[in-house]
Amino acid sequence: MPPESQQLKNSIGIVEIKSFTFAAPPNEMTLECGAKLGPITLAYETYGTLNAAKSNAIVVSHTLSMDAHAAGYHPDDKKPGWWEEMIGPGKAFDTNKYFMICANVLGGCKGSTGPSSVNPKTGKPYGSSFPIVTIGDMVDTQRKLIQHLGIKKILCLAGGSMGGLQALEWVVSYPDDVASVIAIAANMRQTAQQIALHEVMRQAIMTDPDWNGGDYYGKKIPARGLALARMMGHITYMSDQSMEEKFGRKLFEKNKFDYNLSAEFEVENYLKQRGDNFVKRFDANSYLYISKALDYFDLAQGQDAAKVFKNVKANFLVITFTSDWLYPSYQSKEMVKALKASDIDVSYCEVASSYGHDAFLVEVKGQSHLIEHYLSRIQREVDHGK
Amino acid sequence: MPPESQQLKNSIGIVEIKSFTFAAPPNEMTLECGAKLGPITLAYETYGTLNAAKSNAIVVSHTLSMDAHAAGYHPDDKKPGWWEEMIGPGKAFDTNKYFMICANVLGGCKGSTGPSSVNPKTGKPYGSSFPIVTIGDMVDTQRKLIQHLGIKKILCLAGGSMGGLQALEWVVSYPDDVASVIAIAANMRQTAQQIALHEVMRQAIMTDPDWNGGDYYGKKIPARGLALARMMGHITYMSDQSMEEKFGRKLFEKNKFDYNLSAEFEVENYLKQRGDNFVKRFDANSYLYISKALDYFDLAQGQDAAKVFKNVKANFLVITFTSDWLYPSYQSKEMVKALKASDIDVSYCEVASSYGHDAFLVEVKGQSHLIEHYLSRIQREVDHGK
Repeated sequence: MPPESQQLKNSIGIVEIKSFTFAAPPNEMTLECGAKLGPITLAYETYGTLNAAKSNAIVVSHTLSMDAHAAGYHPDDKKPGWWEEMIGPGKAFDTNKYFMICANVLGGCKGSTGPSSVNPKTGKPYGSSFPIVTIGDMVDTQRKLIQHLGIKKILCLAGGSMGGLQALEWVVSYPDDVASVIAIAANMRQTAQQIALHEVMRQAIMTDPDWNGGDYYGKKIPARGLALARMMGHITYMSDQSMEEKFGRKLFEKNKFDYNLSAEFEVENYLKQRGDNFVKRFDANSYLYISKALDYFDLAQGQDAAKVFKNVKANFLVITFTSDWLYPSYQSKEMVKALKASDIDVSYCEVASSYGHDAFLVEVKGQSHLIEHYLSRIQREVDHGK
Repeated sequence: MPPESQQLKNSIGIVEIKSFTFAAPPNEMTLECGAKLGPITLAYETYGTLNAAKSNAIVVSHTLSMDAHAAGYHPDDKKPGWWEEMIGPGKAFDTNKYFMICANVLGGCKGSTGPSSVNPKTGKPYGSSFPIVTIGDMVDTQRKLIQHLGIKKILCLAGGSMGGLQALEWVVSYPDDVASVIAIAANMRQTAQQIALHEVMRQAIMTDPDWNGGDYYGKKIPARGLALARMMGHITYMSDQSMEEKFGRKLFEKNKFDYNLSAEFEVENYLKQRGDNFVKRFDANSYLYISKALDYFDLAQGQDAAKVFKNVKANFLVITFTSDWLYPSYQSKEMVKALKASDIDVSYCEVASSYGHDAFLVEVKGQSHLIEHYLSRIQREVDHGK
């Protein structure tokens, strides 16, 4: 179903997915785990125009369950890309000014190389023989794409949640690549609670008999496990308050209790729908691999957090949301403290929101104002060679 | 393994589990869902001595996954009852003064009638033909036990989490039964987030093929689903802070990453152990039924919360914990507000603790002082006929 013209008018419009393949054997890429992988394909989208100086490029990175389709519409889309409200002409990430790039992460299932890709050595999907990837590997592959596009200095690395972690990993690993970072609802390392939540989700998938050790392509997929993982994820993306406001104790299509074991409350039905829809669009093995990549994320690698940013020259905007309990504000404040300890220019803002972790997707006004002005300042500074 | 003498010295010591059976056909009990159930057995324990006036009885009610064994040791116990630190000679619930009663809830699997009990009509376990039970039904059955013991007025109803909900339901339904209530980490109704968490746990069990529609007794049990539910539950019982303090990013029995999909962090191993142990001691159907009973809990039944306590005469002590995100303090504060609106004598205390919802089991000092003095005051008032 093509989008309505009204929608297209405020949008970057129809967009297309592109792909870039590199690291073809014998020049495979060595991953952080030591394994070699190649060829590697990254699916990506771009919005806006790269200027002649190639100085207006912004890389947006995505979360666990998203993909390269951050804005605009594919011809058969019912809904636009996941950050449509933030990316487009006149929006926070203004495509009249900036050249936006978003790539599906390594390990993903939306066009980039991942466990559902065919291993050229066997002619079969990798499944659980796919090597473990890290946030660092995701960065290294996106960096190849940026080099391929001829961009030497990225104006801004931006992202929320896992997208923010990629931005942080990138600027710490390759400080000369980047003029600025916008890290939203992110942190410097995954905590025990975050790892615990991921592990329960992984166990939901891996204890589903249909997971079959990761070898289920062309067979029955581990739908029950993946739906469960997604249901659980959704609870962590919302807040106590937003769930209460949206659902409270409302019943689903009834006005009194059935008194049986089935779902009766609207919130139960919502989670089930979300779980079932997710199974249609996401690969269970990608969920395992990407959640593992999150767990390994620790910018300081167990060392002194204050020294993480010692070589970084970029400017930072850090945003959190009051009701986000998955990436609580105190975690970003630790990062701000470490940035300040390294004498880095950092703006920090905690946006009041009841939407929990999802706020980074839905609190458009609260973020737009901050981001728009921040990017104008950064571009001014870059243009004046500061 | 018998407990060591040192342990016994500070304990109520060796205790025994008793049982009380009632509602034998044709005098079955009518449950809130409308179904009739009988005979009904409640397994229970008592600690201390009922005085001649039968005026020193305290009913302690348990949580989703606990049972009647609140204190002391069974002869083959390695560990004492679940509230050992709080119940015993000289402890907060002082068994030199009070007669403590704790019964396994209806729907449970530790001696009380539940889905794993044999249905006398079929000679087979009820399984999912067991009728839905509510917190109100749990109260009604415990009330039968109290009447059977000849107690006309309960000095105090006490409990944390679901135990607190039972105390609240009891005092609202039968205000003349009770002189006082200690409600710890409880609330007046289950919220959308709590229902959502329960539903994901239930789906974990019910989508396990071994659940088999609830008919798994004598066959392979839905161990994967129940372990998953427990793992998830554990995350909600702890706090971000307590998980970070206990586990952080420590690895399990290694000092570097394996880079595979298996559990590597200590927190993952801990959750797995907890899940696997739980499966050995708890029935999956009981988990479904008791979590459902929680979801139905709504003291005001959708009506004005301020009017809930209008017929209540009991005195209240309400305790919460700063880091409890499963039953956050604001929910108890709403209850305190409703109690005050009904001119009820209520003491409220928010105990500083990093232990999350588990604090009600482990914050012994913070609670003991409050409870000890509160109970002394209540008994003084009862003895002086106030």
